[in-house]
Amino acid sequence: MTLLDFLDERKSVRIFDPKAQISNREIMDILAHASDAPSGNNFQPWKVFVVKNKEKQAILKNFSFNQQQVADASAIFLIFGNKSNYDIQKIMKFNLENCIISESQLIEKTNRVRTYLKLHPEDISNEGLRFDNGLFAMNLMHIIRAFGYESNPMRGTDFQKIMEFLNIPQNLVPILMLPIGKPLKAGYPHQRYPINDFVKIIE
Amino acid sequence: MTLLDFLDERKSVRIFDPKAQISNREIMDILAHASDAPSGNNFQPWKVFVVKNKEKQAILKNFSFNQQQVADASAIFLIFGNKSNYDIQKIMKFNLENCIISESQLIEKTNRVRTYLKLHPEDISNEGLRFDNGLFAMNLMHIIRAFGYESNPMRGTDFQKIMEFLNIPQNLVPILMLPIGKPLKAGYPHQRYPINDFVKIIE
Repeated sequence: MTLLDFLDERKSVRIFDPKAQISNREIMDILAHASDAPSGNNFQPWKVFVVKNKEKQAILKNFSFNQQQVADASAIFLIFGNKSNYDIQKIMKFNLENCIISESQLIEKTNRVRTYLKLHPEDISNEGLRFDNGLFAMNLMHIIRAFGYESNPMRGTDFQKIMEFLNIPQNLVPILMLPIGKPLKAGYPHQRYPINDFVKIIE
Repeated sequence: MTLLDFLDERKSVRIFDPKAQISNREIMDILAHASDAPSGNNFQPWKVFVVKNKEKQAILKNFSFNQQQVADASAIFLIFGNKSNYDIQKIMKFNLENCIISESQLIEKTNRVRTYLKLHPEDISNEGLRFDNGLFAMNLMHIIRAFGYESNPMRGTDFQKIMEFLNIPQNLVPILMLPIGKPLKAGYPHQRYPINDFVKIIE
């Protein structure tokens, strides 16, 4: 299999083996790798709750138009946007501790991000939050496959009810439900608009 | 190299070989594969302008805080959100022509998407647009590496000036500048917050 085949074969899988289990260690490993996705100013504005409990999953299924994959998946990844990570001092402290910047660069780098965000306030609004989480979610879907699982990105669920049920803080912004598991049936083939509809080369 | 290594090695490369060229055929192939990314209701709300001309790239560099990679890259991918693809009739016609749905399902499927979007108007606002384009951009960055190139996701540029310079329609929403090319120097290692900062498993 080529790398290109591997990337192409990411499809939405909706039929999971209800007996297949995933360890907490694997879940943490998957998410650690997924977080290598880039984000604006490296703010990493994501938070993930992972539900791994068949009784709770049955309740989540009720909140999700009764879609069976929610009950059968080995785990449900719930991706939230976390605006509290849009914190220049926090990321600069992290950069300093990890020797990404030196003490002498701190003020200049801090001011540069501040100036940038004044010009682009959308980057730390819900718009930027969803872009960064789109990058993270796509990376996560590929990482999941490198670990031998499949997934299914879902927006069709009642996030408000889920947040109440699981006591998830209301300051988080619900973005994606991603059941993952071992497939019993392959996903549907991709169907996309022709390339000339959306690309123009300027020479 | 394992699949996981391949995914992990996606880093922002900022030093490109200015002599390395990319063919139009490769550019189109890369973007066709990238468009296998999922999007809400398969709306595929992206549009890409690719600049492959060193004189034009020198001008784009001036709009981008003089960052050298913009001049040296083999091509500059400019990713825009395209809200005109949030068109239920267009995607349903496409689904029908490609036998994804049958004539008898058309009304029910159309109504289902319409009902969903009434509940989730944010999915076809700038928020959904950026989420879908985040998925697309991340997939694109991995596909680019499967073709042997590297890239560098950039927001720090004057998109308004670029759009005027290249006569890009004002109804498109600028999202990302992505120079791609052959690296002369590896990207910096990833630095991310610890996993326990952003993940909680609920059993």
